[in-house]
Amino acid sequence: MKAKEMMDKEFMYMSKNDEIDHVSIKMENSRKLTSPVVDDKMKLIGWVTSLDITKGLRENKKFISEIMHPKDKIKYVYENDPASLAVIETPKHKLISIPVLDDNDVVTGVIGSFDIVDTLSSLYEVKISKLYEALEKELKGVSWQELIEASALINRRTTGKRIKIEDYEINIKNYTFGEAIWETGGLERFFTGLVSVGEIVIARKVGKSKK
Amino acid sequence: MKAKEMMDKEFMYMSKNDEIDHVSIKMENSRKLTSPVVDDKMKLIGWVTSLDITKGLRENKKFISEIMHPKDKIKYVYENDPASLAVIETPKHKLISIPVLDDNDVVTGVIGSFDIVDTLSSLYEVKISKLYEALEKELKGVSWQELIEASALINRRTTGKRIKIEDYEINIKNYTFGEAIWETGGLERFFTGLVSVGEIVIARKVGKSKK
Repeated sequence: MKAKEMMDKEFMYMSKNDEIDHVSIKMENSRKLTSPVVDDKMKLIGWVTSLDITKGLRENKKFISEIMHPKDKIKYVYENDPASLAVIETPKHKLISIPVLDDNDVVTGVIGSFDIVDTLSSLYEVKISKLYEALEKELKGVSWQELIEASALINRRTTGKRIKIEDYEINIKNYTFGEAIWETGGLERFFTGLVSVGEIVIARKVGKSKK
Repeated sequence: MKAKEMMDKEFMYMSKNDEIDHVSIKMENSRKLTSPVVDDKMKLIGWVTSLDITKGLRENKKFISEIMHPKDKIKYVYENDPASLAVIETPKHKLISIPVLDDNDVVTGVIGSFDIVDTLSSLYEVKISKLYEALEKELKGVSWQELIEASALINRRTTGKRIKIEDYEINIKNYTFGEAIWETGGLERFFTGLVSVGEIVIARKVGKSKK
């Protein structure tokens, strides 16, 4: 995934000659806490947050040029950078959003931290049952019931808890990938559990075909 | 994971009797764009963003009570709520941060959207090689080399591209989980690919042991 696939193209921007109080109203109305400052060709020249605006208003500054952070002091990414770069830069610098530029330094979008949360969290919301369906489809000849039984067995081995197969099936249907990872204690452990399940059912399948 | 495990306990807060211009300086100095408003027992009574501050400054308002959003109009979560609730609320309402309350409605922390990005992205940064190591460890008797060969075979089948085994091993060592998901087109597809790899090596292993 590239930065341009994650960015919001409907972003607010301002010119360095804009007046602070006008911009302030525009930011409040659009609920934008940050904005790029661009020249007349839409090239990035700076960045303003609403904290710069409060300071400017208090100190009776007039123009955006008096309060903006110049381009060399701010973070930005390019359209074709991996989206993961924005994902890394945002929490590292506690950014609300980051501008996205094309090869000519023209601002073409902004990635907000909530856009990132939205994209990342969609992965966490995948239902575990989807993974089991993929498993069932891939391992032709292994039934859903065999998969659930093998899972309950692995679960018992790793947690020591005995759980009814029916209840286990309900868990698989309701749990999301995110919950399962948090529950098992990390991606590797979750994944190892699933591999063990695969190992049991495949061994049985191969065993059967040899008879 | 619970909300309290994700929240930042070092948060800024204000009283409704605080003066807007004082709060404004405090927010600028701490680089906070939002803050809970609390009573003298630290109970949540409202919320202020720096956009409310700019409006208050422009309109010559004096106290926080004149500009704050009251508790019944804002989003918050409880300490023991699943962290995923904050993850869902944040992008849905395009929030910068969300206050976390204990059972007495006392504010004990704030979850910022960059805290969420940080937590979510740590999953994406897991190296694929970690998953292969888990696979190797779990499937006793299957060598690393066999795993890589099976992976290259599955990759050739699904993409139609022929790739050298050495190059494939380099990919596995460098790729992260996030990149692999984006590359293969989703969690289910990535996972199905890995299951196929497991299937090949397990079938070989079981086949060997039957001889």
